[in-house]
Amino acid sequence: MIHPTTRVLAAELPGHVGEEVEISGWLHRRRGLKSVTFLVIRDRSGLAQVVAGPGVDFPEETVLRVRATVTANPQAPDGIELTGPEFTVLSGLAVPPPVSLFRPTVPAALPVILDSAPVTLRHPRLAAVHRISAASVAGFRGTLDELGFTEIQTPKVVSSATESGANVFKLDWFGSTAYLAQSPQFFKQTMVGVFERVYETGPVFRAEPHDTARHLAQYTSLDAELGFITDHRDVMAVVREAVAGMTAAVAGRAAGAVESLAVKLPEVPAEIPQVHFAEAMRMLGTDEPDLAPAHERWLSEWALREHGSEFLFVVGYPMAKRPFYTHPDPARPAYSNSFDLLFRGLELVTGGQRLHRHEDYLAALAARGEPVEPYASYLQAFAHGMPPHGGFALGLERWTARLTGADNVRRTTLFPRDLHRLTP
Amino acid sequence: MIHPTTRVLAAELPGHVGEEVEISGWLHRRRGLKSVTFLVIRDRSGLAQVVAGPGVDFPEETVLRVRATVTANPQAPDGIELTGPEFTVLSGLAVPPPVSLFRPTVPAALPVILDSAPVTLRHPRLAAVHRISAASVAGFRGTLDELGFTEIQTPKVVSSATESGANVFKLDWFGSTAYLAQSPQFFKQTMVGVFERVYETGPVFRAEPHDTARHLAQYTSLDAELGFITDHRDVMAVVREAVAGMTAAVAGRAAGAVESLAVKLPEVPAEIPQVHFAEAMRMLGTDEPDLAPAHERWLSEWALREHGSEFLFVVGYPMAKRPFYTHPDPARPAYSNSFDLLFRGLELVTGGQRLHRHEDYLAALAARGEPVEPYASYLQAFAHGMPPHGGFALGLERWTARLTGADNVRRTTLFPRDLHRLTP
Repeated sequence: MIHPTTRVLAAELPGHVGEEVEISGWLHRRRGLKSVTFLVIRDRSGLAQVVAGPGVDFPEETVLRVRATVTANPQAPDGIELTGPEFTVLSGLAVPPPVSLFRPTVPAALPVILDSAPVTLRHPRLAAVHRISAASVAGFRGTLDELGFTEIQTPKVVSSATESGANVFKLDWFGSTAYLAQSPQFFKQTMVGVFERVYETGPVFRAEPHDTARHLAQYTSLDAELGFITDHRDVMAVVREAVAGMTAAVAGRAAGAVESLAVKLPEVPAEIPQVHFAEAMRMLGTDEPDLAPAHERWLSEWALREHGSEFLFVVGYPMAKRPFYTHPDPARPAYSNSFDLLFRGLELVTGGQRLHRHEDYLAALAARGEPVEPYASYLQAFAHGMPPHGGFALGLERWTARLTGADNVRRTTLFPRDLHRLTP
Repeated sequence: MIHPTTRVLAAELPGHVGEEVEISGWLHRRRGLKSVTFLVIRDRSGLAQVVAGPGVDFPEETVLRVRATVTANPQAPDGIELTGPEFTVLSGLAVPPPVSLFRPTVPAALPVILDSAPVTLRHPRLAAVHRISAASVAGFRGTLDELGFTEIQTPKVVSSATESGANVFKLDWFGSTAYLAQSPQFFKQTMVGVFERVYETGPVFRAEPHDTARHLAQYTSLDAELGFITDHRDVMAVVREAVAGMTAAVAGRAAGAVESLAVKLPEVPAEIPQVHFAEAMRMLGTDEPDLAPAHERWLSEWALREHGSEFLFVVGYPMAKRPFYTHPDPARPAYSNSFDLLFRGLELVTGGQRLHRHEDYLAALAARGEPVEPYASYLQAFAHGMPPHGGFALGLERWTARLTGADNVRRTTLFPRDLHRLTP
């Protein structure tokens, strides 16, 4: 038996009108009038109003069990209230909450919210963001499971800072130096040789010196990689399915959160529009071989205007701007078979086709003047036959921020880590 | 379109008899006879036999696309073979495989397997272990989703080594010292205050100086925590559901792996038998307040003999042996409301009821002579009202090892990390 008590959730009360039931939760709001006290109880399913006599004076956030009768009352929220209550205090307070958790909007600035996250996240609007995040991850996994992918768990500590020399965290590993993994890139590629199609949903670490609203030092990367592709377009097709599956899961599994935050879920077109990097540069009237945040916003607006899509693939980034394992475009070798997916003005996904022949890896490293030795275990896979493959990584916090309209990715992860923040 | 080609998987061939199809995969095995060459192609779904003319001499592990006719032949494996093949080499080899991947058992010792994991894991028996692991995690999540849990992602880098002073990895965090998280314990408890029921499936880090067959420096912890419990027995009920859900998911989602490894899945009793720690000590005839590995094996055998169960809860560990946040047994305060779950001779799960009142935390820390300051953010949650709660952690690798009969947990994670191993 999971519930040895007869606890009923707030959301289940309409099915119990006329019955005496037991609910449990936090005292969300108390309003004492002359002859009556209104108490709102918050549990994981929502809110319930309790009507008690005068002078009931538990402080807000007290944890209560309430035995009472479910009574229909058209004037009560949702037409239901609990009457004739008996209270049991499960846990009292040592101090009052740092902010009023019952107000419709969150009455605090971001640093206050983050410093007191164990308490402030109880605010239903703040918690809703994380319910949307959880539903998104479930949608990602469910979609890829359907497509024959296998979930993997890879090391978060690696022996060399190979993928990119900068921005890595250094670690003392039983007396020798190691690094936190910046991505599962090498591992997921290698595992294409075993499972063909793999994904991982886990933490990655970037020692980002940037203190911006869109960078975190730890974030959740939704990674996938698949073999036996023709080129990057097969990867883009999987990205489209993943994003559609995530959207559907948010709509289904986090419907209450979507409603309470008035989230406008995107339409995911059957085919997401795309523009070549060179064409994007032409439209933007720039010749810098990179997209600045303002460029990404402009392109997103263009896609919405021209194609009615909140998503846009930018394909064919210059090889010089992509990592050594990137596969060139056979027709225009200065450009790559890679892409970014822009969503509501922000880069959400990076992906592409990878090299798959051992000799191409050796040549790519030589061309960049890099030694082979630090890549020895990675290159092992390619020395033993690897199919054409590619993959992508989607930043969970950026996705959640775009969906919920958060002005800072720090609002989309429970306990952000950055240049200045290592607690709570 | 996910598959722009007409690729058919090996397992789908019986539905295509008489047709010309295209399969792709690795050349698993080649046997050249005088007048004929047999080639076995391996893809993510299984194996397919191709019959070609004499002299076809691709080396094993070559990545091939094969266009051929699906032909029924009672003498072929599964009664099907591909005839009249045309081959396209997608990728050749730089060097031959370090071990023969086509042999029914793995012809290599553990260090060889681990050193060349990017290649050796292609062996179907080795890959099968990881398919079982993936299915187990999916079963864990699915079960807890059904029970109203919310998935969370918590920081893997923390500011102080509070949970246990020893065995932590030290990190350089933008110039100051930080630590890899040994568990999501504090975060998941805190989040009971927000979501009531939470789980996380992610990496944890232990700087274990032990070089044993059951310790890893990074492993995957399946963590859950739930509020509004009566005591630890409500947590044990959820453990039972989780383990049953994991077993069912392995049976359903990894049926091929279960069959190929001849895994005997456990029966999960509706109620898992339990024994009190004090009674276990009495039966074992020991008075050391701890269970040695030999004790765990003996107790598991006892449970199988007496209760016909491969699972056994040992409840009521001495308070002195449990962390400060452990809830005592109100009836016998030297013992705790905590438990371990033994499975096939090994401790698989640790869990219990936690303290939930702020004043009890202050008293527990004072009794152990510990300062309050390093726990400030954790204690914040309890200062603002927390319900009676508890939770558990299940070690994924130990579970997979017990299921598959692996003699070492290093066989159950793709790229193990330990005292001596930081690559591949």
